Amino acid sequence: MMPRVLVDGQASDRVAALDRGLGYGDGLFETIRFAGAEAPLWARHMQRLDEGCRRLRLPMPDPAVLLAEARTASQGMDHAVVRITLTRGSGARGYAPPAQPRPTRIVAAFEPPPFDGPAQSGGIRVRLCALRLAPQPLLAGLKHLNRLEQVLARAEWDDPAIAEGLLCDTGGLAICATAANLFAVYAGKLTTPALDRCGVAGVARAEILAARPQAQVRPILLAELRQADELFLSSSVRGILPVRELDGHAFAVGPVTRALQAHWRALGF
Amino acid sequence: MMPRVLVDGQASDRVAALDRGLGYGDGLFETIRFAGAEAPLWARHMQRLDEGCRRLRLPMPDPAVLLAEARTASQGMDHAVVRITLTRGSGARGYAPPAQPRPTRIVAAFEPPPFDGPAQSGGIRVRLCALRLAPQPLLAGLKHLNRLEQVLARAEWDDPAIAEGLLCDTGGLAICATAANLFAVYAGKLTTPALDRCGVAGVARAEILAARPQAQVRPILLAELRQADELFLSSSVRGILPVRELDGHAFAVGPVTRALQAHWRALGF
Repeated sequence: MMPRVLVDGQASDRVAALDRGLGYGDGLFETIRFAGAEAPLWARHMQRLDEGCRRLRLPMPDPAVLLAEARTASQGMDHAVVRITLTRGSGARGYAPPAQPRPTRIVAAFEPPPFDGPAQSGGIRVRLCALRLAPQPLLAGLKHLNRLEQVLARAEWDDPAIAEGLLCDTGGLAICATAANLFAVYAGKLTTPALDRCGVAGVARAEILAARPQAQVRPILLAELRQADELFLSSSVRGILPVRELDGHAFAVGPVTRALQAHWRALGF
Repeated sequence: MMPRVLVDGQASDRVAALDRGLGYGDGLFETIRFAGAEAPLWARHMQRLDEGCRRLRLPMPDPAVLLAEARTASQGMDHAVVRITLTRGSGARGYAPPAQPRPTRIVAAFEPPPFDGPAQSGGIRVRLCALRLAPQPLLAGLKHLNRLEQVLARAEWDDPAIAEGLLCDTGGLAICATAANLFAVYAGKLTTPALDRCGVAGVARAEILAARPQAQVRPILLAELRQADELFLSSSVRGILPVRELDGHAFAVGPVTRALQAHWRALGF
């Protein structure tokens, strides 16, 4: 099925060729899983988008308008992934942002990947990517449109048996996967990398941290991951993905991971 | 005047809303100054685009096709700036690049900025940007579409008396301006920052290095710039721009800068 797309609220699959989203990656996006007309993590997606708009100095669109457009794009689909892209719109040539930007909204609905399949039950194999994320505190955490690092990292492998790639920063800290966040469990203690220098602060990660307020957010060295009792990835699109192998090292799927999967099922996806 | 735009060779100002150029900044661009039907630095632009395609694993378009499209877009203009954007085209959702990409070409002609005005004769004022460039060797030197650092740096000021902003990396090395390269002269010796960790390797910079093979390419600390006898910026769109003030420190416009301006005029712009 071709994705259904709205641009600025109108059914259209075209945008201005000189939009700054394309010219400079000047914008943000959210990738949101819907079950029918509802997106259980909607409020968290809007919270992150609002934070991104604040940091990039973009006007935040009305969430009610975005929700209506997401429902229109995904109408008739039992389950959908809706991508909302917000750019700074068109403007004069050059990096200087226009004083009064007129942002472009693109809302597109896609068939979702499995949410409760073999990856979620048996776990996934993850490789270690050679690419190292460059620390840029001004962009860290944001889901912005500058994603060449993720594209290059994802291009490092094409073995379909490998579901994800782990990314470290240039200092040897484990940060996240190409399209998911990372959690490790040490003696029952849930831990996830700090993302104040690079990486995307996922909405699924935010949900987990809210559900487990005792969880620790701190720098995690790659070498520490081998000592973890459990490892899993979180994604607002794919849920909780146990890691059964990282870079040749095997992990068991443990009780903290299973408990969070139960939490996820209860969210209403 | 509205810019004239061709998309994949057809007169059009629209592209697919799901193009990876917009979705991820997955692509490259060149900004090329034309004098009538000729672009004196055309071969160097094509060389950089080819290098970018090789590093991002994009198929390089036929330069003859690009030149024909650039001439069509800029037809009737005495002078023009032509922006050529090349993206990885559309594909399935997700970072994984399609195995057989069908790139999108966008060729747009704009009115050029002055080439031999007060900025070139008297020099410009440059500020020091607070943003620090994040070192990413896999993308360093390329004119790719991930330009949020430049957008944020350029948004730091709106005083029209300040023409450019100098960017350092996180290690305190001077790298480049938001949209130009940096040269310093020490006791007659031309010097420019190494760009193997961040920054864009400009086509004007390449022309200068070819014209002055004795020039030194090395890491330059910000603190060293104050000791320079001459400072200037290079841009394929604006030529050689003497720096008369950097962050409150004054510089004279010297003979090396003037000799390179003469070289520039002889190129045929």
